[in-house]
Amino acid sequence: MEELMQDLVAANRILAEHGVIDAYGHVSVRSPQNPARYWLARAIAPERVQAGDLLEYDLDSRPLDAQARESVRERFIHGEIYKTRPDVVAVVHNHSPSVIPFSVTGVPMRAIFHMAAFIGDGLPNFEIRDVQKGTDLLVKTPALGAALARIVANKPAALMRGHGAVVVGETLARAVGRSVYLEMSARMQMQALLLAQGGRITYLDEAEVAASMPVQDYNRAWPMWRARALEQATREKQES
Amino acid sequence: MEELMQDLVAANRILAEHGVIDAYGHVSVRSPQNPARYWLARAIAPERVQAGDLLEYDLDSRPLDAQARESVRERFIHGEIYKTRPDVVAVVHNHSPSVIPFSVTGVPMRAIFHMAAFIGDGLPNFEIRDVQKGTDLLVKTPALGAALARIVANKPAALMRGHGAVVVGETLARAVGRSVYLEMSARMQMQALLLAQGGRITYLDEAEVAASMPVQDYNRAWPMWRARALEQATREKQES
Amino acid sequence: MEELMQDLVAANRILAEHGVIDAYGHVSVRSPQNPARYWLARAIAPERVQAGDLLEYDLDSRPLDAQARESVRERFIHGEIYKTRPDVVAVVHNHSPSVIPFSVTGVPMRAIFHMAAFIGDGLPNFEIRDVQKGTDLLVKTPALGAALARIVANKPAALMRGHGAVVVGETLARAVGRSVYLEMSARMQMQALLLAQGGRITYLDEAEVAASMPVQDYNRAWPMWRARALEQATREKQES
Amino acid sequence: MEELMQDLVAANRILAEHGVIDAYGHVSVRSPQNPARYWLARAIAPERVQAGDLLEYDLDSRPLDAQARESVRERFIHGEIYKTRPDVVAVVHNHSPSVIPFSVTGVPMRAIFHMAAFIGDGLPNFEIRDVQKGTDLLVKTPALGAALARIVANKPAALMRGHGAVVVGETLARAVGRSVYLEMSARMQMQALLLAQGGRITYLDEAEVAASMPVQDYNRAWPMWRARALEQATREKQES
Repeated sequence: MEELMQDLVAANRILAEHGVIDAYGHVSVRSPQNPARYWLARAIAPERVQAGDLLEYDLDSRPLDAQARESVRERFIHGEIYKTRPDVVAVVHNHSPSVIPFSVTGVPMRAIFHMAAFIGDGLPNFEIRDVQKGTDLLVKTPALGAALARIVANKPAALMRGHGAVVVGETLARAVGRSVYLEMSARMQMQALLLAQGGRITYLDEAEVAASMPVQDYNRAWPMWRARALEQATREKQES
Repeated sequence: MEELMQDLVAANRILAEHGVIDAYGHVSVRSPQNPARYWLARAIAPERVQAGDLLEYDLDSRPLDAQARESVRERFIHGEIYKTRPDVVAVVHNHSPSVIPFSVTGVPMRAIFHMAAFIGDGLPNFEIRDVQKGTDLLVKTPALGAALARIVANKPAALMRGHGAVVVGETLARAVGRSVYLEMSARMQMQALLLAQGGRITYLDEAEVAASMPVQDYNRAWPMWRARALEQATREKQES
Repeated sequence: MEELMQDLVAANRILAEHGVIDAYGHVSVRSPQNPARYWLARAIAPERVQAGDLLEYDLDSRPLDAQARESVRERFIHGEIYKTRPDVVAVVHNHSPSVIPFSVTGVPMRAIFHMAAFIGDGLPNFEIRDVQKGTDLLVKTPALGAALARIVANKPAALMRGHGAVVVGETLARAVGRSVYLEMSARMQMQALLLAQGGRITYLDEAEVAASMPVQDYNRAWPMWRARALEQATREKQES
Repeated sequence: MEELMQDLVAANRILAEHGVIDAYGHVSVRSPQNPARYWLARAIAPERVQAGDLLEYDLDSRPLDAQARESVRERFIHGEIYKTRPDVVAVVHNHSPSVIPFSVTGVPMRAIFHMAAFIGDGLPNFEIRDVQKGTDLLVKTPALGAALARIVANKPAALMRGHGAVVVGETLARAVGRSVYLEMSARMQMQALLLAQGGRITYLDEAEVAASMPVQDYNRAWPMWRARALEQATREKQES
């Protein structure tokens, strides 16, 4: 369990380090002891997370032992996805800067780079306005979380219009790795579209996507990312 | 008061760290003890500011106790805005690199990303030539400062043609946070415009902007940004 | 020999530092003692490579003394190129982010910047689908490696569709330097194409390419890059 | 004199830190004791320069006391400009990445940002092919240096097709500051051109350029840049 908590500390910091989440993103992991529980950091900037900042939640996103630590308002993203997706072990919510332009234009993201083959023939886009008008775009109620989970459906990720993205995985490494490469892939696709000037772009085809998905576990990157992140966490702890 | 001075030291460094201000930007805060006074660093690169570099000014931008420390020439930006905007507690002037292309093309900035919802349906653009021809673009007189304040009017920010932007807030965190996300939002809008190729872009609508504005206080980012900036300031002090 | 191993440690780290390879790129060097052998790091993120991570392979890409260290699946890229190219002493495989958009659009890369004159009048593009359908795009068999080597032919580099690039050199410095400048050149060409809007671009002509190739040895950059990389490797070793 | 040598060490490192010069750029300063002499680092990557790497040259670019230190081949850029421009005290040659796309397309650079007002209504572009065909683009003879100096004429900078730029100043701070802001300005102009889509862009007018030139001395940035660079140089010296 302690190792998983260290994994989650690392995940927060890796995503911040790669510019995928700013102070307002978050990443959670389902409890291996109880699939009806998940762990998520309190309302704190991800790049400063330590183990003591992690809270346990039930699937209605109620903290079990908050001890005066403030919960993030958008925790329902996590709880509602865990409810509908028993296969999912980790959830990332981010403000991925190169993904947001796709979310507001309707230009579909496509699998262009084998490291982000999971994009497949596109990702759903959550238009919060279809559920509730006049919001601040935050998924801060169970109902909005459930609506988002319905849009994610069985996909590995969904865009959120004018806001960011949600990315899931069967492991923490996969949710984190997909988030890192989703951002890169968005940048590459934008450049390919500008280069092609309306001409043909060769995306990964269905068979290539199917062949790539199982092998893309990001397991070569994960230990290096994790080690570097935890070295930094330790340094900060010693200095404070 | 000492805490506010530390806040202002941090604000200078946060903006530099995020690439929003170069050696020539500045950020000020209104004095909580006397609303007719404000604090601003002397003419020094923001990323090196320490508490001893901060000067107090009256609203005509005259330093109260300069002690041979040189004032920035564009301090009138701050004083004149504080005069016309009693609600404003902090002012940032920057050379935000992704905002400047908007300032010279007349392409209106729009609220595209919920973290920069304050852009609303656009920001005014200060064309210094309308006030005075043949300048070096610097707002270095009370008259130019007053003209800029008139353009800002009751808005949270204004572009400055070929020069940068001015951003205000009811708190220092808000003026700094808005500056950071204004730069990001400009980059996203540029990319969305290129992606959309003249097609439709979904901006935040009026109700979404209205719902977002009060909650966007950047209070989750601020303590992390501040802590990191002051750690760096302390390190530099010890080394010198 | 020890110096060559340090060169290879440095090469891994230089490429990572320049953003040319992520956790999944690799770089090899032919053994000076036996041209039928080459050295390549085990399956580990390049930016963490130490001398103990380097393995020797024969040209069929079988490790000679693996000692439980896992080989990278795409090592056949290296072995098969060394077979067909006796002049080649070093091979880089990367996911060069600005090169990939060219690989999926068919827009030919051209020599636009003297530091990457080796691009000449274009680089071949490896379409794995022409060899095998429905792959995960990885060159993980001898047959795929041989097919890639045929596409590279006598060129200094080849693009790999939706995947990255392979770059070769008569020295390690040259393979690394070419990789760094290939990425930069791709970015410049993309910008030139957008600026030119279909208008004329002046590329290096045939005589200029021919005059540049022999002098571009990257020997001024190499010692600085190497020293910095090995300083970092030493620091990490001491800390662990 | 020692201070000037420290200035030149700093200038090398500042330009590298800002991404304006790679391992192959260089910066020189005219000797205050003898206007027919200038100082330039030996053939070494600029970011590692120390005072012991600096060499004195006459205006024919012959080193006075080389002591086995290798000279950069393109030193004639410096000597020939000092010959024709008595007003010039410092010369930078770089591979400014955002400037090169302008050099190959014929799209004129214009003054778009007050910090780079010195661009005025455009900069000359050195097409080496007009002087000599089939070169490696390097200005490695006195004749090529003299031809470049003729193109620079009385301007503050010139582009070099497919290669980079040369920037001059009446002080070292000015040549360095202009180099930093030329790169930024190129990026802004590229973005403005894409945003404007053929529509109007407001550049600085002639009177604004004339008003800006004398005040743009980069003297607020310089001490901060210099201090940071020399701190780094000292650290490296202690570690080696």
